[in-house]
Amino acid sequence: MTIYSFLDDYSEGCHPEILAALSETNLSQQTAYGNDEYSMEARRLIAHECGRPEVPVYFVGGGTLANLIICSAVLRSHEAVISAASGHMVMRETGAIEATGHKIITMPSADGKLTPADVDAAVAANGQFPHMARPRLVYVSNATEFGTVYTRDEMVALRDVCRTHDLLLLVDGARLGVALASDRAGGLTLADLSALADVFWIGGTKAGTLFGEAIVLPNESLADDFDFHIKQRGALLAKGRALGLQFKTLFTDGLFERASNEANGAAGALAAGVTAAGFELAAKTESNQVFALLPNPVIEALQEQFAFYVWEPRPGDQSVIRLVTSWATDPGQVERFAIALAKLAR
Amino acid sequence: MTIYSFLDDYSEGCHPEILAALSETNLSQQTAYGNDEYSMEARRLIAHECGRPEVPVYFVGGGTLANLIICSAVLRSHEAVISAASGHMVMRETGAIEATGHKIITMPSADGKLTPADVDAAVAANGQFPHMARPRLVYVSNATEFGTVYTRDEMVALRDVCRTHDLLLLVDGARLGVALASDRAGGLTLADLSALADVFWIGGTKAGTLFGEAIVLPNESLADDFDFHIKQRGALLAKGRALGLQFKTLFTDGLFERASNEANGAAGALAAGVTAAGFELAAKTESNQVFALLPNPVIEALQEQFAFYVWEPRPGDQSVIRLVTSWATDPGQVERFAIALAKLAR
Amino acid sequence: MTIYSFLDDYSEGCHPEILAALSETNLSQQTAYGNDEYSMEARRLIAHECGRPEVPVYFVGGGTLANLIICSAVLRSHEAVISAASGHMVMRETGAIEATGHKIITMPSADGKLTPADVDAAVAANGQFPHMARPRLVYVSNATEFGTVYTRDEMVALRDVCRTHDLLLLVDGARLGVALASDRAGGLTLADLSALADVFWIGGTKAGTLFGEAIVLPNESLADDFDFHIKQRGALLAKGRALGLQFKTLFTDGLFERASNEANGAAGALAAGVTAAGFELAAKTESNQVFALLPNPVIEALQEQFAFYVWEPRPGDQSVIRLVTSWATDPGQVERFAIALAKLAR
Amino acid sequence: MTIYSFLDDYSEGCHPEILAALSETNLSQQTAYGNDEYSMEARRLIAHECGRPEVPVYFVGGGTLANLIICSAVLRSHEAVISAASGHMVMRETGAIEATGHKIITMPSADGKLTPADVDAAVAANGQFPHMARPRLVYVSNATEFGTVYTRDEMVALRDVCRTHDLLLLVDGARLGVALASDRAGGLTLADLSALADVFWIGGTKAGTLFGEAIVLPNESLADDFDFHIKQRGALLAKGRALGLQFKTLFTDGLFERASNEANGAAGALAAGVTAAGFELAAKTESNQVFALLPNPVIEALQEQFAFYVWEPRPGDQSVIRLVTSWATDPGQVERFAIALAKLAR
Repeated sequence: MTIYSFLDDYSEGCHPEILAALSETNLSQQTAYGNDEYSMEARRLIAHECGRPEVPVYFVGGGTLANLIICSAVLRSHEAVISAASGHMVMRETGAIEATGHKIITMPSADGKLTPADVDAAVAANGQFPHMARPRLVYVSNATEFGTVYTRDEMVALRDVCRTHDLLLLVDGARLGVALASDRAGGLTLADLSALADVFWIGGTKAGTLFGEAIVLPNESLADDFDFHIKQRGALLAKGRALGLQFKTLFTDGLFERASNEANGAAGALAAGVTAAGFELAAKTESNQVFALLPNPVIEALQEQFAFYVWEPRPGDQSVIRLVTSWATDPGQVERFAIALAKLAR
Repeated sequence: MTIYSFLDDYSEGCHPEILAALSETNLSQQTAYGNDEYSMEARRLIAHECGRPEVPVYFVGGGTLANLIICSAVLRSHEAVISAASGHMVMRETGAIEATGHKIITMPSADGKLTPADVDAAVAANGQFPHMARPRLVYVSNATEFGTVYTRDEMVALRDVCRTHDLLLLVDGARLGVALASDRAGGLTLADLSALADVFWIGGTKAGTLFGEAIVLPNESLADDFDFHIKQRGALLAKGRALGLQFKTLFTDGLFERASNEANGAAGALAAGVTAAGFELAAKTESNQVFALLPNPVIEALQEQFAFYVWEPRPGDQSVIRLVTSWATDPGQVERFAIALAKLAR
Repeated sequence: MTIYSFLDDYSEGCHPEILAALSETNLSQQTAYGNDEYSMEARRLIAHECGRPEVPVYFVGGGTLANLIICSAVLRSHEAVISAASGHMVMRETGAIEATGHKIITMPSADGKLTPADVDAAVAANGQFPHMARPRLVYVSNATEFGTVYTRDEMVALRDVCRTHDLLLLVDGARLGVALASDRAGGLTLADLSALADVFWIGGTKAGTLFGEAIVLPNESLADDFDFHIKQRGALLAKGRALGLQFKTLFTDGLFERASNEANGAAGALAAGVTAAGFELAAKTESNQVFALLPNPVIEALQEQFAFYVWEPRPGDQSVIRLVTSWATDPGQVERFAIALAKLAR
Repeated sequence: MTIYSFLDDYSEGCHPEILAALSETNLSQQTAYGNDEYSMEARRLIAHECGRPEVPVYFVGGGTLANLIICSAVLRSHEAVISAASGHMVMRETGAIEATGHKIITMPSADGKLTPADVDAAVAANGQFPHMARPRLVYVSNATEFGTVYTRDEMVALRDVCRTHDLLLLVDGARLGVALASDRAGGLTLADLSALADVFWIGGTKAGTLFGEAIVLPNESLADDFDFHIKQRGALLAKGRALGLQFKTLFTDGLFERASNEANGAAGALAAGVTAAGFELAAKTESNQVFALLPNPVIEALQEQFAFYVWEPRPGDQSVIRLVTSWATDPGQVERFAIALAKLAR
């Protein structure tokens, strides 16, 4: 029997609607380097969704590329980033930001979120100029690396603290779709982000594309010569159409929202299955990541049918496991998981 | 009427066989980050073609990424590259190599090729240590930026001069397919390159993939921690399957060779059309780039039906134009071009 | 009346013996770039002191230069440093290490010292390769930024944990003189450091030179092409004699030790003055930094005659002040300070 | 018998007036990091000489530091430098500029000087944006690496071409003293440079200091956060007084000009000695470098008494030698050289 994977939200290829678009347009001749008609249409659709028809939008192949290009393009070499210590650019990008020459000031965070107080503290501790790098960019992931999401109010508060200290706000949206679709988002929208952040990016990979992220620059002064940095860091695809077409499709007929809702729905169903079976969640399920606290023997039995990460051991022969869902999650498998867990609970 | 483009070899999407493979495998669950079964099979197929079953192979999204990752991974910061002044990394990568901290020593070259004498001269002029960066890596493109190709003997001579000076040899194979398929290659094969170069990469984008290049490291000591550099530079795709599957397909049933032969064949037919119409070629057609010397009025008339670059003006109201072909070039359009040119010649 | 400064250990020029040497040799013609006879003799003297006649020694102008050159020379771009969060390279070098492309993994530390347990924890938390930078270099300052010093046993333990994890050990010796001269050093010597560290540097600036630090590379494999990095980072002085002569003098007739003993002696006298006046020390005085807890009105009164940093406020209208001594500290002023404090205590 | 050296202009220590100033001020307590009274006075004196009382002035330890800090501070990572191929930053700084991430576009030059036509050509060849780095900074050395100097008119023309292309003009003044003191300078002054260049630096090392260069930023917008870059690159000396005092002395009683005139005078006398002995100069003597064409046996005989570089072999058993003078050149040795040469000529 095959093992079904809840390991992550990038185990499958692309959303069928995107695959269809790739098939339909494959042999049309298009201008290279992102000047094709699909990329232009994708930029128009995203800008429309952001409520800013002229907002600059750029496409790159992956999240680490997005983060390092943004830092390289908008910071001078003595300017530093402030991030939660658990931030993706701190812990999962192999020093990519430092490799472009920039320091990251890290602040401890229990749930992956950065607060205005954290920003205040980071600024206060890094002001012995010129002996310290100047804090200039605040980095937050939404959803965070723990699946938690920022509410609209929290994002407004971050914007405010950034203004106070003359800091730029960058939102890493590798999982922005499920964050905006979350019940906990407090109504946060792409248009809100366009009003609050200086730069953010919309994750395609985890929302249904084969690869690719869309960088949006509401602070238009940051767009000056931005394309040079995309090229210099190796992210300017000859067949930029491949990125443009995927994002055009993602922002057609609400696919981005639909796919994100499916992911969150599946996570909600998994979480419900956990509690229905009498087990506890280790954290509230805010987006497409479910953290369940299970006895180790139950975990081992589940692993015969399902793949997932054992996140951390807990006292009493238990562990937290992490289950991740996506647009591709098979509802039948979610149901099968709930049944299996219920059976094991007995 | 639509204008048919001979502008470049990346105006279309991917080869239909690759598109079919993407469609067939789309929803299978695969391990992330290049540890999927397609990537593993692709590595096996390429290594087999190289005659070195264990040779390390890595996939990245584009040529500039390949070049900058290689330089970053194999050079220390005081080590420099030697390149023809027309080299892609010198003239078309927005300072990507320098952005990783490395100097490029440039040597003039009329046809885009670097000779052993050039290497000797570069080494001789850069030996006042430690006041000068130490030459360490020789960079050649095959085919070159001018469509010229290295013969097997020339590549052996480059390997020899590199050994003399303790230099590494890097072959940029953005257009390696058409170079190996060229009549002028003197029998150079992937297996030869694996014996001669320390590192080379096989261009996918111009050979039929949507994106992606395969880096081969015959000098296995260079592979030490190479994957860290792929990640640090943003090139480790979550859905690495997209790269692996494309290269698996490219190296199945000889697609790489077939596609390259089609490109060169179309270039040969275009070149024949030029001379048949009584015009001159500005350079011998060695791979998939045709340089034709045409009167400017003829060029203007052709532009009503075809897109191509006007390369450089020449005395006597003439110019050199560049025509590029690929696996996707429509033979009917090649024929139409020849007929149009013959008509204009009269 | 002039205010006497206990602000730092670099308020004066150079030790009179060094000034004399500069005067005596000023017009002799010497080979440039550190190949002069004084530099050679200085290297010999230091190597002798290290008990390693052939150990490579290099001179650079300052501590940040020493740290960034070492990191740049001995690390590949994906390799990271482990440091206490209070480390000089973390908090007082304006992101200099990151500007050479390297990540620093920071560990909290109350007294500025890094323990083997910290190293173990840093390695354990940074092992998800290749998504995380590889820990490769352990950085400790001795004396630390808080004036604390490592004992010989602690240094042996650090060496051991480094070996366990295949890490290099770097000792920043900006204040190495006072550290080795400390009662708390447990007998640690330059020869010990040469056996324990892979690389360390001996601070000249705070020990009596006008500028300059001596980098020692007991792990000789790290010396390979090290001089290129000194030049590339702008640290190769044309008149390298100025560095060499100062270190030659510092290691003649035990000046390094004498100067360090004077600094520690003055600190001890200041500390004794504090307690004699009935006040408390905020930390044990281990080298040339004295931390005294004083009522704020006392501090204000002292500031009319002495300059020093008010380090941090404490409850009860008190603050910690920091007093720093050096070879140049005037014993008369130390006495005057004690008297003034005693008077204020009444 | 001792061999007298004409190898370079940094074989001795510092000018006696500077040594005296170091001795007189040695034990005064001064604020660290360049905020001492000598540095402030030195800035005032230089600004006065520049005719711009408020022009920002910074001190660093050496020329490579000056160049790399300037490039790092004023350029974004996609911006490139234009330089003569013989420029110091191209050929003698071990890739220091590239190590900060910036490309240098090189133009061939016979005499070390860059012309407006060279700048036009470099801009024209590097405009395929964003595939090419954007030319942004023009780098010239005055005097050049060959001892040639720019006239005032040539410098005005360079300023004009820079304005046309929105380029910044940087003048490397490692040997600015002898350039301004040259008969060929056409009256160029520090005040002129302050009106023409965006940034330039005044070389101390070759003009009489032990080490140190003064960076002047007439384009004041470039001074924004400049001090962070000095610190980040390791150039902020704790005892900044050592730099300030030397430049204060250099700009007191016209020492900078006097020392430069002595150097040029000695060069003129050496050149006169060459021609008086019946030999040819290989290039006009414009500053403190003399290039003489001598028979190889004569060269060998001279080498028994004098040290100098044999620059390049020439046909007919001859070679060009280079003789360099400075403020420290002993007039008696210049005379002795002329006599020795005259004797050998017979």
